[in-house]
Amino acid sequence: MKVPEEIVELIRGEQYFTIASHINPEGDALGASLALALALKLLHKDVKVFNSDGVPYIYNFLPSSELVETVMDRERLKRSILLVLDCNDLERVGLKDVECKKIVVIDHHRTVTDFGHIRWIEPESPAAGLMIYNLVRELEVEINTEMAVNLYAAIAVDTGTFRYENTTPEALRAAAGLVEAGVNPGEVSRWLYESWSVNKFMLFVSMLNTVEIVHTGNINSAIATITLEMFRETGADAPDTENFINFPRMIESVDISAMFREVESGCWKAGLRSKGNCDVSLIASCFGGGGHKNAAGYRICGDIEDIKRRLLEAIQDSVASR
Amino acid sequence: MKVPEEIVELIRGEQYFTIASHINPEGDALGASLALALALKLLHKDVKVFNSDGVPYIYNFLPSSELVETVMDRERLKRSILLVLDCNDLERVGLKDVECKKIVVIDHHRTVTDFGHIRWIEPESPAAGLMIYNLVRELEVEINTEMAVNLYAAIAVDTGTFRYENTTPEALRAAAGLVEAGVNPGEVSRWLYESWSVNKFMLFVSMLNTVEIVHTGNINSAIATITLEMFRETGADAPDTENFINFPRMIESVDISAMFREVESGCWKAGLRSKGNCDVSLIASCFGGGGHKNAAGYRICGDIEDIKRRLLEAIQDSVASR
Repeated sequence: MKVPEEIVELIRGEQYFTIASHINPEGDALGASLALALALKLLHKDVKVFNSDGVPYIYNFLPSSELVETVMDRERLKRSILLVLDCNDLERVGLKDVECKKIVVIDHHRTVTDFGHIRWIEPESPAAGLMIYNLVRELEVEINTEMAVNLYAAIAVDTGTFRYENTTPEALRAAAGLVEAGVNPGEVSRWLYESWSVNKFMLFVSMLNTVEIVHTGNINSAIATITLEMFRETGADAPDTENFINFPRMIESVDISAMFREVESGCWKAGLRSKGNCDVSLIASCFGGGGHKNAAGYRICGDIEDIKRRLLEAIQDSVASR
Repeated sequence: MKVPEEIVELIRGEQYFTIASHINPEGDALGASLALALALKLLHKDVKVFNSDGVPYIYNFLPSSELVETVMDRERLKRSILLVLDCNDLERVGLKDVECKKIVVIDHHRTVTDFGHIRWIEPESPAAGLMIYNLVRELEVEINTEMAVNLYAAIAVDTGTFRYENTTPEALRAAAGLVEAGVNPGEVSRWLYESWSVNKFMLFVSMLNTVEIVHTGNINSAIATITLEMFRETGADAPDTENFINFPRMIESVDISAMFREVESGCWKAGLRSKGNCDVSLIASCFGGGGHKNAAGYRICGDIEDIKRRLLEAIQDSVASR
C-alpha cells in the first residue's frame, strides 16, 4: 500500500484539521479517526474529531474516545482540512454540505463518486485503520500505545480479528507492529467480545430459541426473530443485537442467516447474511432494501409469519432465476 | 525463538522418524505434527505420524490428515527418531514405554520432567505450530500450501485466531508468512468456527437455556448443564460440546464459567474456566480434579443440584481463603 505523497505533504503544511467518519460508526471508523487525531496532535496540529452519532458504548474502551464530538463547529471547519475516513461521501458522514479549505477522502470501500479534492481509496485494504497505520508511519510519528490500541481495534473489527477472507499479510504484520507498540491482544478481544451485559446474553438466548432452519430451493436458511416483547422481558436494547445474526452461520449447512427485529409494533428490520456466492442484496431489493452480496437488509411491516413466508419465496425465486 | 542446532543436525543426519503428539489432540498437536511430517517428506525422510486417539472429525480439513496412524509400529520405531510434539512425557502420548533410537521433545508447555534426549521447550511460544514453523524454515524447506494450512490452523487454534493473551508479534508475523504461502484465513476460520452440525447447534441452544448466573463471595459464576437427555433429544455427541464452556464468558461480569456434562447416568464431567486472576485449578482440586489457573476440571457423581451447591461453596471458600 502506497500512501499518496500529496496527503503527507498537505498534512505537514496545514494547521487545522477536522476528522469525520460515517454514521453508525464501528471500530474501524472510530479507531482510525482517533489514531489519526492522536498522531496529528503529536505533530502539534489543531485537530477535532467529528461523528454525528458519537461513540457507541461498546467502543468507550478506545483510548481518547472522549475526543469525538457530535456537533460540527462550522466556523472552525472553514479554515480546516476535512479528512473523511472509512466512507467517501458527505451523506454517509451525516452532513448535507460543508464549507472547508480542502476535503481528503481516505477509505477502503469501493466507490463510484468523485467527492473530495484528494481521494485515497484502497479497496484491497481490510480496514481504514490499516491505511491510517501506513499514513502515520509515513508522517514519521512514533506510534504510542494509545494510537496502537485504536489502530489494532480498527483492524480487528473489520477482519473479525483476522478471521475473515479480507485478512491480508499486511494486516497481520501491522498487527504485529502494534502489539510491539503496546497493544495487549487479549485485552482488546475481551473489550470486543467478552463485554456483554447479562441482559444482552438473555436476549441472545431468547433469540437463539426462535431459530428455525428451513430448506427451500437449494438453500438452507436460519431465521431468527426478536420481538419487542423479548426486549421488554430481558431489558436489552436494539444495539445489543449487533452481531447476533452471525451466530447461526456457525452451522455448516446454513447458507443464509436472517434476523427479524421488531422496531415498532408489527414493523421489522430484516438483516440477511450469506456465505459464499449466495447474493442476499438481490433478495433484499425485492422488499425495497439493499446492501452487499453477503450482507443486506430491508424494513417491512405486517404479520411475522407472513413476512417469513415471503422471504422464503423470494429466496426460492432468486435460486430459480440463477 | 532460537531453533536448537542439535535438532536441525539430527534431522538432517537421520532417515527414520516417528512424530507423536498428545491424546485428545487439538489443532495445534495435529497441525504441528502434519506440517513437520510434510517437511520431512520433502527432505526424502521416511516418516510416520502417530496419535493414539487419531484425528477428531472437526480436524479432517487439515491437509494430509490421513497420514495420522493410531497404532504404533514398534519394530519400525526401534530404528526411528521419536519426535514428541506439543507435550513432554510419554503418558500424554498415551504410551507406557518406547524403544527407539532417540527421543526429541518439542513443546511449548512449561514442564518439570526430564523425559527425552533432546528437549526444546518454549513456554513463551503460543503454539507448538509456531516452533515447527521456525524449525521448517531452519531446515530450509520451502513452505507449501499444505504445510502452511497445518501451521496456520495450529497457531490459530492455540491463540483463538489471535484473540488470546498469548498472541505474540512473532505469531502474527508467522501468520502473515503463511498467508503468503497460500493459506486462506477465511477458509480456515470457516473450518474452525462455522462447521457446526444442526444437532450441535440445537445442543448449544439447550445448554444456553440452562445457564444460571450466581453471585457468591465476590465471584459471578455462570453454570451450565448438559444432561444425557439433552444429548438424546438433539442427537449431538460429547465431542460437540468442545468450546461450549467459553460462550458464557462473553458476559463481562462473569468471572467463572462452569459446565457440567453428564457422562453416565448421575455422573458428571465438570469444566471450569476463569478470567484473570481467579484460579480454578484450586477449586477443581477440592474435588480431586486439576488443571491450570484459567482452565480446570473434575469428575463427580451425585445429584446435580447438590453438585452445583458444593461447587459454589468451594468457590466461596477459595475467595475467603485468599
